[in-house]
Amino acid sequence: MRLHTVPRLAEAGQSHLLQFWNDLSPEEQVDLTHDLQGMDFKEISGFFKNAMETSGSSKHEKMDARMEPVPREVLGSVTRDRESLKDWELVGLQCVSQSKVAALLLAGGQGTRLGVSYPKGMYDVGLPSHKTLFQIQAERILKLQQLAEQKHKIKCCIPWYIMTSGRTMESTKDFFSQHNYFGLDKNNIIFFQQGMLPAMDYNGKIILENKGKLSMAPDGNGGLYRALGNQGIMDDMERRGIEFIHVYCVDNILVKVADPAFVGFCVQKGADCGAKVVEKTNPTEAVGVVCKVDGRYQVVEYSEITLATAEKRSADGRLMFNAGNVANHFFSFSFLRDVVQKYEPKLQHHVAQKKIPYVDTQGQLIKPDKPNGIKMEKFVFDIFQFAKTFVVYEVLREDEFSPLKNADSQDGKDTPTTARHALMSLHHRWVLNAGGHFIDENGRRVPAIPRDGAAGSVTDDGNRNLKDGTDLPIKCEISPLVSYGGEGLEELVKGREFQPTLMIDEHGVHELVKNGV
Amino acid sequence: MRLHTVPRLAEAGQSHLLQFWNDLSPEEQVDLTHDLQGMDFKEISGFFKNAMETSGSSKHEKMDARMEPVPREVLGSVTRDRESLKDWELVGLQCVSQSKVAALLLAGGQGTRLGVSYPKGMYDVGLPSHKTLFQIQAERILKLQQLAEQKHKIKCCIPWYIMTSGRTMESTKDFFSQHNYFGLDKNNIIFFQQGMLPAMDYNGKIILENKGKLSMAPDGNGGLYRALGNQGIMDDMERRGIEFIHVYCVDNILVKVADPAFVGFCVQKGADCGAKVVEKTNPTEAVGVVCKVDGRYQVVEYSEITLATAEKRSADGRLMFNAGNVANHFFSFSFLRDVVQKYEPKLQHHVAQKKIPYVDTQGQLIKPDKPNGIKMEKFVFDIFQFAKTFVVYEVLREDEFSPLKNADSQDGKDTPTTARHALMSLHHRWVLNAGGHFIDENGRRVPAIPRDGAAGSVTDDGNRNLKDGTDLPIKCEISPLVSYGGEGLEELVKGREFQPTLMIDEHGVHELVKNGV
Repeated sequence: MRLHTVPRLAEAGQSHLLQFWNDLSPEEQVDLTHDLQGMDFKEISGFFKNAMETSGSSKHEKMDARMEPVPREVLGSVTRDRESLKDWELVGLQCVSQSKVAALLLAGGQGTRLGVSYPKGMYDVGLPSHKTLFQIQAERILKLQQLAEQKHKIKCCIPWYIMTSGRTMESTKDFFSQHNYFGLDKNNIIFFQQGMLPAMDYNGKIILENKGKLSMAPDGNGGLYRALGNQGIMDDMERRGIEFIHVYCVDNILVKVADPAFVGFCVQKGADCGAKVVEKTNPTEAVGVVCKVDGRYQVVEYSEITLATAEKRSADGRLMFNAGNVANHFFSFSFLRDVVQKYEPKLQHHVAQKKIPYVDTQGQLIKPDKPNGIKMEKFVFDIFQFAKTFVVYEVLREDEFSPLKNADSQDGKDTPTTARHALMSLHHRWVLNAGGHFIDENGRRVPAIPRDGAAGSVTDDGNRNLKDGTDLPIKCEISPLVSYGGEGLEELVKGREFQPTLMIDEHGVHELVKNGV
Repeated sequence: MRLHTVPRLAEAGQSHLLQFWNDLSPEEQVDLTHDLQGMDFKEISGFFKNAMETSGSSKHEKMDARMEPVPREVLGSVTRDRESLKDWELVGLQCVSQSKVAALLLAGGQGTRLGVSYPKGMYDVGLPSHKTLFQIQAERILKLQQLAEQKHKIKCCIPWYIMTSGRTMESTKDFFSQHNYFGLDKNNIIFFQQGMLPAMDYNGKIILENKGKLSMAPDGNGGLYRALGNQGIMDDMERRGIEFIHVYCVDNILVKVADPAFVGFCVQKGADCGAKVVEKTNPTEAVGVVCKVDGRYQVVEYSEITLATAEKRSADGRLMFNAGNVANHFFSFSFLRDVVQKYEPKLQHHVAQKKIPYVDTQGQLIKPDKPNGIKMEKFVFDIFQFAKTFVVYEVLREDEFSPLKNADSQDGKDTPTTARHALMSLHHRWVLNAGGHFIDENGRRVPAIPRDGAAGSVTDDGNRNLKDGTDLPIKCEISPLVSYGGEGLEELVKGREFQPTLMIDEHGVHELVKNGV
């Protein structure tokens, strides 16, 4: 152990990290030393102090009284502003054609809750094509570039910034290179890495997950901003002339990457920051809502609101706080630069109380059954408050949001099955709206609305002539290389009848032999 | 076989029903003879002819163009007309206090899809109390009578008419008597039986399910009207001075039996017929919608509309056809009498194409793998078209509708689990709104909105400090004998902290040892 490290540890009150030093192998000693040297203990205990103070404060109690809903003027809605949709899309498509738009993917998390050890983006939800989330997103970017080029007759590119974490960087990069970057130019895919922070007990002592290893965790999706700065991403964007950035989360299988309508809406409104939301319709739905608190925009987590507030309704009958956050945001480059340089450093970490496995003074690994320490995180939406012109864009959940979070299970939510069904149901609707039809094995047309629609059957009284919903939704998958958002399908399906499984990809229209979902 | 039956069969083209006569035992011959003698073959083949004609017609194609949404004037909404709610409830409660309101339960179906052979109402979804659907409904009636009596200081009663079918009559009656009618006066529970009709092949031949037995099925929940007439129920209602009838389906665990707000709304609007609905928010949700067709109200099944129509939206962004039918209706006595006497006989049966097991000419039982015949049904809502003043009452799904249809299964909808969770989630909200709180095993207050709320988590980014949703919803059950709709709980829970499982019943407030849902 280098001499100067020991006093640094003592000073920081972290000497316990060396308590098992003599039990460690030489290699373990090297690793531990390396980890400790890379760490700014002053900064970390500063984070800890501030984070604990805020989380200790009773801000949650007072939250309700300070909340205001999103005013109608700053809201764009695909259902309430349909007449503007085309314009917004045109504006956005033009920005794309000018190579001013970048996509930024938050992919730091592992698929732990999903039951896999590799990055979520590498997951195959079991679509007919067996494409992974990464591939689906890559192909949407490819297609969107083509659409912009066709419309504006100029070559353009959508750089794709992918934030990984220490845990996912290598496997993510390998996966992309193995798959030839899914047809994208590898120079336009920029990987970077979010920071890690140690887990600490309630006294600010860093927790050892074994005798020679600190318990480390990514610093939250809000770690984005720090990483953007310290890894030269902002400079890269500037070099490329990026003006607008679409930030999104890896786990949403329906995500419209660099969505031109969303970008166009934000640009037309002159917004420096925008949030895409879905309507929260049930007061007890576990979703954070975008709203104003003390006059500034932020996301209020569902765990912070009382039921009374969650149940408040506007005159139109909608929930007053119904802007459900889906981790899908727009930033102007200049706003993002200010955030990175000026605002983010002022932000405090949120405290996540956790059950953190640790080694006790005897060196025994203990798995606690109640929270014994904290992890410190920042959230990507923490910086909404700094926006000068903040806008909200409401889209339809069934068209744009189906996150993959959990492994399949009884009554499971946000599972591979729900994600797969959501995508197939969307593509089914694309085919119907383009004039195509589906028939069953007896050649009879299948009703447009299957027995068990995405939202489930309310009541089937008087619908005995439909079979049980087990063979639904209709199996239908359309490659993003063929259609980004449902466009361009008429010539392929209009007036035609298909028997599932229907697959439409760059090679044409295929009807596959029927097989279970 | 009595002599006169044979020619009747020949005449009706049903002689095949006797093809195995000589193979039958004397008992089987007696049973078959009895079944045949009870049957009006002329009427049945008339039903068949008409039903086939209508179902053959291309009305479905043309439906979309003829549909109009429910006009705002005839709509009452718990979210958009909150200021009127109290009035409506008072009006309804007064009607109840005057013993003018009856409840009518449609309980003809067996729990086949649920995987049980007994009536659905006898099902226990696994609540802490293990109450059955029948008991929950009975206790709501009891409580509502008490509320009306307390308010108006007069004794009153809500007669409960229960329509069973040939298959469920005996077991239903036994169940009620075994349970002492759940505290209700047995003289105010009136059981009656809906009719049965034979299944027929596409040529109108009645299908044999075995050599000596016809394949019979209930005639649909619309069989209600015929049964009301031919079993003297209308006379009984008249004798009791019933003016308003609330008709509902047995499978909805949240059903507000004889809901005073709904009844009051309909009465105040001078309606002769009303439908309670929940908002359909997803275009592909498998629910029939109440709307106007050619200027008359009816329910259009989801299988009858195109996706384009299902996706139509009003200026306010809501789906244009969003009045989701939940088989929960209001009728004035006079309207119901006219329906029974004049209108219903004119209605044709709907054709339900079915896979119907049958015996072939060799007497072998065949289970067909595609539809081979039809069952004929009428639907309870077929008579909306005859209403002079029809109104629609929109309520919140999470408060009032959670049907029990299927057995528990992965990703299952309308299962015992979803029904149980819906009820406990509602009661949880009642406690919170009455000023009570819940704490976890560590004594910490549980957030008002659990990790996996009724609607499921949209995104939990930044909610790492909540445990996985597996122990949710909070286990909480309040006996209908204590509260009909959330009222009267303050004195029991205000300012108190509870650790689940919380049970509140006529004996008081209990916290049970925690156990898995």
